[in-house]
Amino acid sequence: MGGYLSHLECTACGKVYSAGELHTVCPACGKVLYPRYDLDRAKAEVTREMIAGRAPTMWRYQELLPVNDPANIVTLGEGMTPLLPVPNAAKALGLGEVLVKDEGLNPTGSFKARGLSAAVSKAKELGARAAALPSAGNAASAAAAYCARAGMDCYIVMPVDAPHANQVECDEYGAHTYLIHGLINDAGKVIREGSAAQGWFDMSTLKEPYRVEGKKTLGYEIAEQLGWTLPDVIIYPTGGGTGLVGMWKAFAEMEALGWIGSRRPRMVIVQAAGCAPMVRAYHAGQRHAEPWQDAETIAAGLRVPVAIGDYLILQAVRDSGGEAYAVTDETILDDMRELAHSDGLFACPEGAATFSALKAMVRERKVAPTDRVVLFNTGAALKYVDLLHPALPIVDAAHPIAAAQSR
Amino acid sequence: MGGYLSHLECTACGKVYSAGELHTVCPACGKVLYPRYDLDRAKAEVTREMIAGRAPTMWRYQELLPVNDPANIVTLGEGMTPLLPVPNAAKALGLGEVLVKDEGLNPTGSFKARGLSAAVSKAKELGARAAALPSAGNAASAAAAYCARAGMDCYIVMPVDAPHANQVECDEYGAHTYLIHGLINDAGKVIREGSAAQGWFDMSTLKEPYRVEGKKTLGYEIAEQLGWTLPDVIIYPTGGGTGLVGMWKAFAEMEALGWIGSRRPRMVIVQAAGCAPMVRAYHAGQRHAEPWQDAETIAAGLRVPVAIGDYLILQAVRDSGGEAYAVTDETILDDMRELAHSDGLFACPEGAATFSALKAMVRERKVAPTDRVVLFNTGAALKYVDLLHPALPIVDAAHPIAAAQSR
Repeated sequence: MGGYLSHLECTACGKVYSAGELHTVCPACGKVLYPRYDLDRAKAEVTREMIAGRAPTMWRYQELLPVNDPANIVTLGEGMTPLLPVPNAAKALGLGEVLVKDEGLNPTGSFKARGLSAAVSKAKELGARAAALPSAGNAASAAAAYCARAGMDCYIVMPVDAPHANQVECDEYGAHTYLIHGLINDAGKVIREGSAAQGWFDMSTLKEPYRVEGKKTLGYEIAEQLGWTLPDVIIYPTGGGTGLVGMWKAFAEMEALGWIGSRRPRMVIVQAAGCAPMVRAYHAGQRHAEPWQDAETIAAGLRVPVAIGDYLILQAVRDSGGEAYAVTDETILDDMRELAHSDGLFACPEGAATFSALKAMVRERKVAPTDRVVLFNTGAALKYVDLLHPALPIVDAAHPIAAAQSR
Repeated sequence: MGGYLSHLECTACGKVYSAGELHTVCPACGKVLYPRYDLDRAKAEVTREMIAGRAPTMWRYQELLPVNDPANIVTLGEGMTPLLPVPNAAKALGLGEVLVKDEGLNPTGSFKARGLSAAVSKAKELGARAAALPSAGNAASAAAAYCARAGMDCYIVMPVDAPHANQVECDEYGAHTYLIHGLINDAGKVIREGSAAQGWFDMSTLKEPYRVEGKKTLGYEIAEQLGWTLPDVIIYPTGGGTGLVGMWKAFAEMEALGWIGSRRPRMVIVQAAGCAPMVRAYHAGQRHAEPWQDAETIAAGLRVPVAIGDYLILQAVRDSGGEAYAVTDETILDDMRELAHSDGLFACPEGAATFSALKAMVRERKVAPTDRVVLFNTGAALKYVDLLHPALPIVDAAHPIAAAQSR
């Protein structure tokens, strides 16, 4: 393997750069750089049957990933998460097939593992010694874990109200971890300053070219798990939106490889009512999104007031005939409980938001009973249990369950 | 598939029972019943190559699992977790190859998913409408999730100091969840009383015959992931011990199937210094373990003062030439941090205890540099983050990271 990575290309101005050294954003226009591959060679040399025999991690698609020497792969076993039917929830909504890509079963408990496995691996290959990034929480945990494994220093700034679990993880993994009274974009300013002064490699999402490559494997996996077809609808909880644009990129690559056809799912984004810059921009017909003021939601991963990839997100939603929804925290909490109870899947708030959006689509008749729908649970609900405080009854030998029940 | 399950056999008195209806312990002697299969038929019909092509869950070994009709399988995608090398930790100990079976990447965040997927599936097949069990925490979460998915009522009693995450999970999954001032055996008494009065099926581990069948897939997976060989040493954190005896059962089945030879790993158990009934019994040369008084440890899964399968655990350790260690909570917390920092693997306290035991083996020269060692991380550390309270520095625009560092 190795050597399929060809060059970097700016998604906005189209300028081309070498993939042989560290890059962040496009030096010419400041927008997002995408890695490009020799897909003709890959088409000739790599088959879906070869991939079927490989270990169940995202690195089964290694020819479409940026690492040249497999020795540089930094892996914790990320990817090939279940694509789990939720038949009881589907039936209650009058739908035929609803599946949840359960990304909570990744190392560090979230889909962020994919992007950071790819980015840390490539940074290692290119000689980086220290990485830095701002995070709403889960990206920090993943960066800290993969950097620890790579023997790379890691500098992290996250909001003081990021989930306790994320703070503990970063500290245990040995990252240099800092908190800030503010949001991920405030954290980003401190990281940029530190990176400029100290020479750390800035691993902010879509501000370096390789996290999206890890995230795009979501698209490869869904296709493989559905027998190399795509679903009709994908609903994705959108903070920075890297997974969504990554899947969109993966679909184009897979078509070029001859692995799928030209049909695309409707790409539906969901955000929190308290922080919905992309939803607002979508409905306003804008190409870029204005920063959201006073962002507030329990869904930490959606507390992202501004995203550098806004134009890529909005383009994918529009090109695919998708939709955009904002849902309240109250609805999210209700839907977490409903999905856990109906199908045994305890989603994080961001994941439950996709279920809330699906309900909205059903109400608005924007999804048909024959549509195959894929929801994304982006992380383990375990990171958010501090939000919940059930009042559980206490029993003892003198007051067994029958007595407790009658209270 | 289907129909390979033959009968139940008592592990103590050898009496044989039909597998066609619900059973708990041996009606004759009160000990553990094991399911037995038509291994001759399986040997003729099932190959390792067939298994290699199946989806990455524990149900890839379906002919060796107790469900007859695949429609009864209740799955959340459990099993085929990573067997992850920890090369940095191994090197620091002067060892060659140390691997961690990372069971935290299961649904509900622990290895309990395996046993409950098997047990709930079989209970569903046999017509059970309600299940009940006592738990130190993680089994409760798994039971609640699989029962929810199966549409089965679930009754749970767990200690008031079980991790908050487990309490939240059970409630969200819609289980009838109760707390008790006491330990898992006190909870067990309340469950037995309720089950007798209400007709719930008692799903206490090894008190019904099928949780061990899910757990035994740990043994199948390790063999498959190591190219159908076994490691030299397995270190297992032992509460109820179902995984350990399950692997021991799996090894015998795989040998009968012709998939592995007669060599066995040394089976090493580790318990917490504050609750070590098996370790005490092992060193005292006893066949059964006395109940541990005043059990106390941060490792909730090891707060198990008495285990019905004690004789099976002790037999496997002795027959394999294994060892038994007790480690302190302080050591466990240090080793959680060390393993997270060295190899990016944040283990739960029970999992970190296996690393502590490995260090003890190195000190006592009971493991050779050429030994291939497998540790078990039985669950996600995320369930235990309430134990940790890092004091993270706060930064802002006026006090960037460089300033914070110099504090």
